[in-house]
Amino acid sequence: MQALGQQAKQASYALAGLNGLQKKALLEAIAAKLNDKSDVIVAANAKDVAAAKENGLNDAMVDRLLLDEPRLKAVIADIDNVINLSDPVGTELESQLLDNGLRLSRRRVPLGVIGVIYEARPNVTVDIAVLALKTGNAVILRGGKETLQSNLALSEAIREAVVEQGLPADAVQLIKSSDRSLVSALLKLDKYVDMIVPRGGPNLQRLCAEQATIPVILGGVGICHLYADKDANIDKSIQVIANAKVQRPTVCNALDTALIHRDIAAEMLPNLYQELAALGVSFYGCDSAIAIAEKQGLTIETATDETYAQEWLSLTLGIKIVDDMDGAISHIRTYSSGHSEGILTDNIHASAEFINQVDSAAVYVNASTRFTDGGQFGLGAEVAVSTQKLHARGPMGLEALTTYKWIGVGEYTSRS
Amino acid sequence: MQALGQQAKQASYALAGLNGLQKKALLEAIAAKLNDKSDVIVAANAKDVAAAKENGLNDAMVDRLLLDEPRLKAVIADIDNVINLSDPVGTELESQLLDNGLRLSRRRVPLGVIGVIYEARPNVTVDIAVLALKTGNAVILRGGKETLQSNLALSEAIREAVVEQGLPADAVQLIKSSDRSLVSALLKLDKYVDMIVPRGGPNLQRLCAEQATIPVILGGVGICHLYADKDANIDKSIQVIANAKVQRPTVCNALDTALIHRDIAAEMLPNLYQELAALGVSFYGCDSAIAIAEKQGLTIETATDETYAQEWLSLTLGIKIVDDMDGAISHIRTYSSGHSEGILTDNIHASAEFINQVDSAAVYVNASTRFTDGGQFGLGAEVAVSTQKLHARGPMGLEALTTYKWIGVGEYTSRS
Repeated sequence: MQALGQQAKQASYALAGLNGLQKKALLEAIAAKLNDKSDVIVAANAKDVAAAKENGLNDAMVDRLLLDEPRLKAVIADIDNVINLSDPVGTELESQLLDNGLRLSRRRVPLGVIGVIYEARPNVTVDIAVLALKTGNAVILRGGKETLQSNLALSEAIREAVVEQGLPADAVQLIKSSDRSLVSALLKLDKYVDMIVPRGGPNLQRLCAEQATIPVILGGVGICHLYADKDANIDKSIQVIANAKVQRPTVCNALDTALIHRDIAAEMLPNLYQELAALGVSFYGCDSAIAIAEKQGLTIETATDETYAQEWLSLTLGIKIVDDMDGAISHIRTYSSGHSEGILTDNIHASAEFINQVDSAAVYVNASTRFTDGGQFGLGAEVAVSTQKLHARGPMGLEALTTYKWIGVGEYTSRS
Repeated sequence: MQALGQQAKQASYALAGLNGLQKKALLEAIAAKLNDKSDVIVAANAKDVAAAKENGLNDAMVDRLLLDEPRLKAVIADIDNVINLSDPVGTELESQLLDNGLRLSRRRVPLGVIGVIYEARPNVTVDIAVLALKTGNAVILRGGKETLQSNLALSEAIREAVVEQGLPADAVQLIKSSDRSLVSALLKLDKYVDMIVPRGGPNLQRLCAEQATIPVILGGVGICHLYADKDANIDKSIQVIANAKVQRPTVCNALDTALIHRDIAAEMLPNLYQELAALGVSFYGCDSAIAIAEKQGLTIETATDETYAQEWLSLTLGIKIVDDMDGAISHIRTYSSGHSEGILTDNIHASAEFINQVDSAAVYVNASTRFTDGGQFGLGAEVAVSTQKLHARGPMGLEALTTYKWIGVGEYTSRS
């Protein structure tokens, strides 16, 4: 692993010197190579799929790791989108002439080496390699064992294209063994790796936070809330809650718990229940919610600390009746993962207070939590969604793969 | 420690809601209280100083922890400077109207709770508390055991002022025991603490990198280089090297190793030696440097991997003769701590290559490394100097104590 790190760092120096045209040519070469090798890649993926079926993975899991011809074409087409994004590297963020004559500027530069640990989907191998190269970074990839054959084929194709462009193959490296101890070793390569991005569930995030000596961008776990205030428009609020819960329930920005002000709960809850139940949603709620539902003959399971702390990723919704805004904010502070929360209200004061008091990556007023997404936010690409506060918060675009250096140019200038 | 963290997080919510006038009043109240209590503070410091002398600390160490009446006055006067800095909190970094009608903005907000671990100087207690409060953050302070009495008196005065402004005392908390295990516990309070800033030597930095589950800003260790290129103006280069080494040798941006191009070494080195030796500097050098010096009857000790990897913090300088720019860059990549490096040259191509290839927080052309400093860079304050690449790099001003949140305001808007 030390050698892997060293090779990546060495490659990163070559990448940092590329100009925009060279990086464009590199990404085009990668797209062409993936196209040329599509038979090999699809065949490798077929092995992963066969092994998954043999190991009894369910249909949804198997579908996640499938990379057939049409899906590969879509992955390759996405490279074009990245080529067309503007490259943040080289921009000067500020430039000033200090009193002593020193010209001081702050220039955006690649981070250097990025380590990405991910699960299942093989398209991530291409997506991340391309985004890293676009910003002049080397990358060390560690995919899930279920897609090892696919990832090997994909990364080999990418490396061939890199070499054909006169660049070091180790600009893109895949960890080829499923040995778990290699993840721990990767997390401690602080001499060579500048940032770790874990793309996976809470266990992976926790492992990285605990073991890494490299800065880690935690994220991707969304325990999201919408709070219907006493001044909310009830019918419109139900539509937004339905969208946040149902439009794509398996992703991190989907709604997990709806908080409802006590003053509107008796009117709102039965309608909300019926609207969402018709879409296949089932419910966990507080005692007050259960009592209101029962009067209408509707069934809500009893919510607990555990259910409130759960990222559902399914058609399940927590419901809690709160006495006031403070009750809503306090619940969010206890259970939120800092991803996305929103208030539904017609009251400008309530909206301002909620925005100020809720400390999450994205805070909404009268909008669905489903908007927290690099594409929706106009970033053009999404490396990950950060739920921590340093470096990058919320959807991470290309800029999150860069840092800056201070550049001071003098005339043999000394400090007095 | 859990309680400490929880209290800090709770206090941070109150601080996040303050406007500029309220924060100004708070800092003024702290300055006034420190003034009122100066007798108590100076007396507490006298106990620390007496204990230090009793424990046989040398004069320089004792001087570092001294906080007498004039020094305290200077610390209080510095609060005025912070009051007059512009407050980055609340600024909108961007704001756009998405196609779907959502008004999306990115607003600068306090980080929340900052943990700072520092050694010796008691003024840090006030400096950091004031900078944290100015940006709406709560802070947990852990000072050195040599200044515990001083820090207790200072933090108590600050807390009294905080309470008199109607705010929670736990906006500023000091860890009151010197028990080392409390540092480890602080580093794992990720539920409550948003950022750790260690201000101390390499051992403290390493401890934080290894143990923390909270994002850590490493920094403050500077193994700095100046490279005199073959096209350097030799006389002017010697002046810059002298400034970087001698002007204040005990700080992190002082020069540690001078790299000299072989073509100019025979001419430059004897003059450099005599100029710096007259200022009290002694030398470690490579075999080529020793050979050149010996011809002039000058003495240079033999440099080793260990001496090149040393942050001198004293009137000692490493010297290495390199064959070319690549040799200089390769040496820097091996030994630099990523703080400050510079090239001395009249050649525009050499300067551009050096800027691109050297991956440090600050890269200079024809200027002293001593410029890497929040004050010199016009930041108005300096929280620390970061040598890592995420969040903040180089001198950290008030902005480094903030993050941003995305705010999306719709009209009960759903994602389609």
